[in-house]
Amino acid sequence: MGAEKRLGRFTVRLANPPSIAGFASVVGKKEGEGPLKDSFDIINNDTTFGENSWEKAETKMQSTALARALDKAAISPSSLDYVFAGDLLNQCISSSFAVRDSDLPFYGLYGACSTMAEGLGLASMLIDGGFAATTAAITSSHFCSAERQYRMPLEYGGQRTPTAQWTATAAGCVILSANGSGPYVTHVTTGQIIDAGVKDANNMGAAMAPAAYTTLDTLLRETGTTPADYDLILTGDLASTGSRIVRDLFLSDNVDLGDVFSDCGELIYDRNKQDVHAGGSGCGCSAAVLCGYILNGMRSGHWKRIIFAGTGALLSPLTVQQGESIPCICHAVIISNERQVI
Amino acid sequence: MGAEKRLGRFTVRLANPPSIAGFASVVGKKEGEGPLKDSFDIINNDTTFGENSWEKAETKMQSTALARALDKAAISPSSLDYVFAGDLLNQCISSSFAVRDSDLPFYGLYGACSTMAEGLGLASMLIDGGFAATTAAITSSHFCSAERQYRMPLEYGGQRTPTAQWTATAAGCVILSANGSGPYVTHVTTGQIIDAGVKDANNMGAAMAPAAYTTLDTLLRETGTTPADYDLILTGDLASTGSRIVRDLFLSDNVDLGDVFSDCGELIYDRNKQDVHAGGSGCGCSAAVLCGYILNGMRSGHWKRIIFAGTGALLSPLTVQQGESIPCICHAVIISNERQVI
Repeated sequence: MGAEKRLGRFTVRLANPPSIAGFASVVGKKEGEGPLKDSFDIINNDTTFGENSWEKAETKMQSTALARALDKAAISPSSLDYVFAGDLLNQCISSSFAVRDSDLPFYGLYGACSTMAEGLGLASMLIDGGFAATTAAITSSHFCSAERQYRMPLEYGGQRTPTAQWTATAAGCVILSANGSGPYVTHVTTGQIIDAGVKDANNMGAAMAPAAYTTLDTLLRETGTTPADYDLILTGDLASTGSRIVRDLFLSDNVDLGDVFSDCGELIYDRNKQDVHAGGSGCGCSAAVLCGYILNGMRSGHWKRIIFAGTGALLSPLTVQQGESIPCICHAVIISNERQVI
Repeated sequence: MGAEKRLGRFTVRLANPPSIAGFASVVGKKEGEGPLKDSFDIINNDTTFGENSWEKAETKMQSTALARALDKAAISPSSLDYVFAGDLLNQCISSSFAVRDSDLPFYGLYGACSTMAEGLGLASMLIDGGFAATTAAITSSHFCSAERQYRMPLEYGGQRTPTAQWTATAAGCVILSANGSGPYVTHVTTGQIIDAGVKDANNMGAAMAPAAYTTLDTLLRETGTTPADYDLILTGDLASTGSRIVRDLFLSDNVDLGDVFSDCGELIYDRNKQDVHAGGSGCGCSAAVLCGYILNGMRSGHWKRIIFAGTGALLSPLTVQQGESIPCICHAVIISNERQVI
């Protein structure tokens, strides 16, 4: 008995795919100057968001994204059956502080930059399983809070390496509902921890790429689909270094991802003009790209079926100091304008 | 449509309660000298567990607990459809490193000392929802890794306050299955963030007690039960200070919890002999007490229906330094030897 929705070891097909009822993105100044500026709900040129610490600024971004997404979906906070949230900061403080003045049923996640995909998967399954009618997945990152925790305080003015990614100052929130007109989350592929031996905290793309490849390859195999079955296969956030590695890993299987493949870390900034080195990263990067450019594009019919694959480098400054390599994970969901499943 | 399993805003009743197919606990020297010593599967008097850092020792405890629980349940790792894991360390490194040499579908959680209850709830719902046949929930804590991250490195020899709790060096793992002879997880009550304004990082019990009270009160109300319907209402880990506050909060509602109420932080050590001040804490404390003394006692029929309520103080040294109070959460499950639900 059990597991009748399972297609394979990592993938489930939802019986009644939940609808994305609302979504919102909140970003800072730099993101608001990038190529996706017209897709964000809120751009705040004051990256403190009016708060007196970077951590409080990040908290403010999460609570703002949640409020705006609920507003766009015309859903009241008291209708939320579950909120899944997490972020990059130790003890996921942006998430817990963002909802501490509410009475929302709350599940804290830790998945680094895979958090939006992790939350989307779990929030979708709890609706499909009959436990909830309405759920939310939220996450965020802030360049200033992340850099001082993971690498160097900004005041040091450290030189960044060519493979370094720029942690996006951004937050995104998706509201899922048992009812609605889509787009729908139809499949969930859960990630596994992949540690390819990369020890360079300034090369997250290379560390995460094998996890992204593994999850995407698993999803395609377990659903019996090929890249041609999708309008977009979107990772977040591998940036230029990691994206190239994923393309190469698929090429070694004689699969050319071609134009169908893209990455949130490549989309969010203009690398020629914005000095972000390899591109964007941070939980908020893929969340804000999804909760703006991508879901807007699905609603307009530009894309009909996509894979959204969140890639997390579970980077710990402490274990890096202890000489350890960086374990990574990639969670993926299929989002489709058609409720009937493939 | 949707949410047919929902009893109230925070509680769901499982349609096909999953069975606890296996469980295991691994502890260190001090826990192995306490009153529950006969209930643990593995006691290691070398608290390094043969590793060269406290963090690696904690990782080893988690992987050992998982292996032992699978072994006791006669289930192979490849049968696990999902693993839910988290711990107290930044980036939940004990959890991700514990499974990085496996290929397990993995969801990372952050719930501090509520992690075992959070994982049990989610792992149970994914089975009940038809997504999985077999799942695991794992967590751990280690006195030495936690103290240096949250308070002071042991080498400082700092004086502990009377309300301080002793982070248990312990890990626990529960294996859940769609089939089996119980005990069963029948209900899941999800917590909300409760911040009672406590700012003392050495008084976690007082910080967490209002969250424990809120979740327990919600569970009783939404299931239409009273404390008399349970053989045991077990929190973890409030220790003596927090437990007293929970009793008082219920007394102010004219509810005397009496002998039915207990706390893992009070059970794991002998406060008169072991110099632990208020008692035990840490994700591993409630996990190891549950995965030993409690589940053994349920299997033997000593208890037939219990509430297991994991209480987490989402303590961040950084936000405490910024003058913030400590947000807390409590997740609860009902575990019963009877599969039919109340």
